[in-house]
Amino acid sequence: MGSSKNITWHQSTVKKRDRYLLNGHKSCVLWFTGLSGSGKSTLANAVDNALYQQNIRSYVLDGDNIRHGLNRDLSFGAEDRKENIRRIGEVAKLFVDSGLIVSSAFISPFLDDRQLVRNMFDPGEYIEIFLNCPINICEDRDPKGLYQKARKGEIPDFTGISSPYEVPNDPEIMIETNTMTLDQSVEKILGYLKERKIL
Amino acid sequence: MGSSKNITWHQSTVKKRDRYLLNGHKSCVLWFTGLSGSGKSTLANAVDNALYQQNIRSYVLDGDNIRHGLNRDLSFGAEDRKENIRRIGEVAKLFVDSGLIVSSAFISPFLDDRQLVRNMFDPGEYIEIFLNCPINICEDRDPKGLYQKARKGEIPDFTGISSPYEVPNDPEIMIETNTMTLDQSVEKILGYLKERKIL
Repeated sequence: MGSSKNITWHQSTVKKRDRYLLNGHKSCVLWFTGLSGSGKSTLANAVDNALYQQNIRSYVLDGDNIRHGLNRDLSFGAEDRKENIRRIGEVAKLFVDSGLIVSSAFISPFLDDRQLVRNMFDPGEYIEIFLNCPINICEDRDPKGLYQKARKGEIPDFTGISSPYEVPNDPEIMIETNTMTLDQSVEKILGYLKERKIL
Repeated sequence: MGSSKNITWHQSTVKKRDRYLLNGHKSCVLWFTGLSGSGKSTLANAVDNALYQQNIRSYVLDGDNIRHGLNRDLSFGAEDRKENIRRIGEVAKLFVDSGLIVSSAFISPFLDDRQLVRNMFDPGEYIEIFLNCPINICEDRDPKGLYQKARKGEIPDFTGISSPYEVPNDPEIMIETNTMTLDQSVEKILGYLKERKIL
């Protein structure tokens, strides 16, 4: 600053570890991945609700708040799908920096894209949760009627039908959503967070 | 779901008003706008720190965490600058939904772009803070040496030099950063938040 001003402004920044202290828990991203209809959004919201009940600060990123907002400019083409996942990863990183436990509920079918997101985070902060459910069960559920449309050829590059789902090699958590109850699934995830001293 | 499955998963979602209850305060975006060198990032971080000291959940979006992350793919061309502000607005909206008081510290020189962001929010959630500081003072401070480069013609479309800054017509808060101290500026903003019952 020039000598003509006698007002000096010093910068002070609240760090991630400060926010841990305020909240009483650490932050991380719970990255739910799996086929359409495997239960990602439902489980992510159930975990979010269970965390809320324990006074833990958390948030869910899913199609409802991302596709019509931040990523409204993106198509479902290959390049834009990659950009979709990259942006969600970057937003999740901001939430983790802010001290929250953020859940991301998107198919995210490709290993490379998930690896790119994992690399954004410090070790232990990115927790991949693979919702392992046979495609015939997902297709039977078909909550949004998407499989039916995909089978008719109305949706190009539909994951599991006309585009691959690359199964995670080594997810931190695996949930078999066709045999476990929602409560059991939530408990498994909360158990992991306690074991890793995030809670 | 088909009759073959006896496991039904019901969705439960934590809402913004639930998060208000947990945090003990409402959420909003503090949208700092002003010339380079007007003190946006410093003041945003000082407010964030003051909120933190009062156990209020908050976060700052600024060049440090946005430009090299979410918006790393954007240039400084006209169209990308618009997209830069749109994305920051959308991310701020997610933070407000998560219950935090989020501060955004970007020049955001154009009325249209700021209006677009304002329109994303419910009434009262978007609080525009105009850092009013004469350009000669900003240029004198020149913390990053940008004005010097701009004067040499090394930075095209530099706000205040070769590109306009459109002064807010009716900002919620105005701070004259060349005559007010940092503490006074923080107090003015916190006073506003108390008056509006956000805190």
